[in-house]
Parts: sequence; C-alpha cells; structure tokens
Amino acid sequence: MRNIKLVLAYDGTDFSGWQVQPDAPTIQRALGTAIGRVTGEKVLPQGSGRTDAGVHALAQVASFATESPVPTENFVKALNDILPASIRVLLAEEMPADFHARKSARAKTYRYRIYRGAICPPFLARYVWHYPYPLDETAMAEAAALVEGEHDFTSFAAVDPECGHEEGRSSTRRIFSSEWQREGEELTYTVRGNGFLHHMVRNLVGTFILVGKGTLRSADLERILAARDRSASGATSPASGLSLLSVDYERIV
Amino acid sequence: MRNIKLVLAYDGTDFSGWQVQPDAPTIQRALGTAIGRVTGEKVLPQGSGRTDAGVHALAQVASFATESPVPTENFVKALNDILPASIRVLLAEEMPADFHARKSARAKTYRYRIYRGAICPPFLARYVWHYPYPLDETAMAEAAALVEGEHDFTSFAAVDPECGHEEGRSSTRRIFSSEWQREGEELTYTVRGNGFLHHMVRNLVGTFILVGKGTLRSADLERILAARDRSASGATSPASGLSLLSVDYERIV
Repeated sequence: MRNIKLVLAYDGTDFSGWQVQPDAPTIQRALGTAIGRVTGEKVLPQGSGRTDAGVHALAQVASFATESPVPTENFVKALNDILPASIRVLLAEEMPADFHARKSARAKTYRYRIYRGAICPPFLARYVWHYPYPLDETAMAEAAALVEGEHDFTSFAAVDPECGHEEGRSSTRRIFSSEWQREGEELTYTVRGNGFLHHMVRNLVGTFILVGKGTLRSADLERILAARDRSASGATSPASGLSLLSVDYERIV
Repeated sequence: MRNIKLVLAYDGTDFSGWQVQPDAPTIQRALGTAIGRVTGEKVLPQGSGRTDAGVHALAQVASFATESPVPTENFVKALNDILPASIRVLLAEEMPADFHARKSARAKTYRYRIYRGAICPPFLARYVWHYPYPLDETAMAEAAALVEGEHDFTSFAAVDPECGHEEGRSSTRRIFSSEWQREGEELTYTVRGNGFLHHMVRNLVGTFILVGKGTLRSADLERILAARDRSASGATSPASGLSLLSVDYERIV
C-alpha cells in the first residue's frame, strides 16, 4: 500500500467547495473519480482542509492510499487527462505511511485579492473582490498586524462548529504573519498560520474593510478578539477573492 | 438623436459569441438589454464585427443611437451596474452622426495566446490554447511574416460566406503586421489588419501550428494563399485563445 501526496491548483468558481456533497460538483469528488479511473480503486482523497464554494487553490495538498501498480510519477499526467481544465495536479509523490494531508500540516498560507479600480477587468472578476470605494489602507495594515501571534479566533469563526473544526477542539490558532500589500489596482491580504477556523480569513478581511472604511479603528481588533463572539466582527467577504496559496509540512521551529 | 460609442471588454467563455441568436446568451443581447433598461428604448447595438463563441475582447467597439436624456458619461456606470461581471463597459462617448462601429473601422488587432508549459494553470485555461508539444517557433515566425501585405484570404476563411462577410464582398484584406512573440511559457500571435474573414485568425494560427510541427514549411504559406481553397490550410484553432485587442477608427496613411 502506497501513500500518495498530490499538490493541486484549482479555479473554485464553478465548484461547491472541496468537500464531497450529494448532488453538487466538488473538487474532492472530481479528484476521487479521476483517481478511481486511474487506479481501478474506490478512493476518497483527503485534503489538507476544506475550501468553501468559489474559493481557489494554488497549491492545495491531498493524499490517498493505493495498491495499484501505477508508477507515482505517472499520476500527474493520467489525472490531468481526466480532470476538467479548472483542476490541475501539479505534483505527485510517495510519502511515508504516517503522512496525512490534514493531520500532518504545520502551516497554511491564504491570499485574499481586492481589486480597487473603478472597473474590474472581466478576466479578473472570478479571482478578486471588486471593492472600488475609499479605504484607509494604512489603518488596515495596522489592524492586520494585531492578529499576529496566538489568539482565540472565535469572533472570526462561522457559527457552525460542525463545519469549521472538530467537535470540542480549541479555537486558538497561531498566526505567523498577517499583512496587506498594494500592487497597482490590487490590494492583497496574505496570512500564514498553523490553522484556520471556518470562514476565518474571509471574516478577518470583512473586519479589516470596516477598519478601512473608518467604521472601526485598528485598535478595535484587540477588543473583537477578546469578545469571542462572531457578532463582534465584520461581514464575511466574498469567496471569489480567496485562494489557498500553500500548505507546509515541515516542523516549525 | 445622439450616436454613442461604447468600448467593451468581455470574457467570451460563457457566451455564444457577439451576435444576437434565438435562445443563446450573446454579448450583443446582454448589452442591448442593459441599454434598454437604462434608456427605456429598444436598442440593438452595432459591433465593430462579430466575435465567435468563446472569443474574448479587451476593447470591442459598439455604437447605438438614443433619444434618452441620460448624460453620455453616465452610461459606463449605469450599464456596468446591470451587466454581468464578464462584460464591462470601459468608455462611452458621443460621436458624429455618421460614425458606425463596423463601417467606420479602419483596422483591428487580434491576439492569440498559446500556453506551452506541460501543465496549464487553471486560471489561464479560459484564455489560452494549451499546446505543450514541440514547435519550431522560428519557422512559425517566418510563416507569420508571409501573410503581411494585401492578399486574398479565401484559403483562411470559414466555408460559410453568409457568416463571414457580406455577400459578394471581396476576400482580399490588408495585413499590417503579423508576428509571434514568446514570453515565459506563453507564445502569442498578434495580427493587425484592415479586416478579417470569418475564422481567419484561428485558421491562420492552425496553419502556423502545422509549420511549427514540421508538417508544412514556412514558404508553403504562399502556395496556400494562392490556392484560394479552405482545404489548403490548417484546422481552426480553439476559440479560447483568441481576443479582439482593439479597433482603430483613424484614417490609415
């Protein structure tokens, strides 16, 4: 039995997220079906975590076990020949038996893209949140820095614990970096942490937008974290702007 | 009565081309419906030319006449508020009564994008032709240069004269520039001419690919032009790679 790790990129626009659901197209289902056609085995690949409907990935990681004789390096081309062009396998490698795409993950990096120009090019519309209104970007950068470190992120988690994280598991996460960058008409938020609750990145972005609009001050982030109450933070920003950039498996020193 | 010119960008993937058709989503229909909602008038905007299903535009030009009191500069925002994000109005300006988006056009520029890497990023798949196989790009550049100047392009026109150009109109067109450029994994063909027959750019690209594969030599382009027979040239390349870049209305010296 081999344990195979896949690295995947996908355009999530036309999928109902990662996780298999009845009667809805999902990345996990499309990938499982393709692996089944290559190996002749019934397989449900495990992802590093779920991505929501409309969320993209540049390097999602999935793993599955197989007894098929297909050489590991052949999986990239074989799966890409079956998958739709909106899902691409970038890499396949054999891992030790104890590797698990979700449990072994040490850190994840997400990116959220906001398009600030008056007219959003149609070729970007699937990959950004178009927000052309005034924003105090300096205040947003200050607010972003305040979530670095270890915090209880209950205020930024969707109020549906069964979807977001394991029953009874802590809502404390460590954020290694959290910053906004401006390049041309794009304002981009990049956040790296040891884990994320359901909707956490989109709820952080929605809250930073309230800071940018002047509805909140950057220092309010501390109060919102302390409240441990979803109603203390801003609205969930649109899925289109969010991409899972990478998943790290190295032990963090 | 004002004569209004619009400049439009669109992602053509989910449309059945520019031209209104029964029971199919088209750019012209979506735009006409939006203009109708803004002006209260029944309008069918005229484009500089048709684009086929799946073909994109960075700056298509359309014009329409209106008696509505809506200020010209308000059309951009008003139409974008109604149109889907895949169609954007970039500019609206009032033109003299004799301006006509198609008849007044003096030149058009098209671009065709080919992705040469082994794995096509899912975020590019809608906008390129993924062609990872070996190509002699130098021979393709030589072949492209041979179509510059005035030629009868019958060999590169779809065999459906009613769709391609006006009944009885000449198939002679003047090509001002025709060249391939390489940037990273992208190989791009840019062609500017005083007019194009139906499928002409995609049939040229399909023929240049035969040169790149070694099936034809670059010098064969002269023979194919002289044949005035569609069966002499290569297959029509996929629509996804093609974009209308710009339409020029200045008199060409």
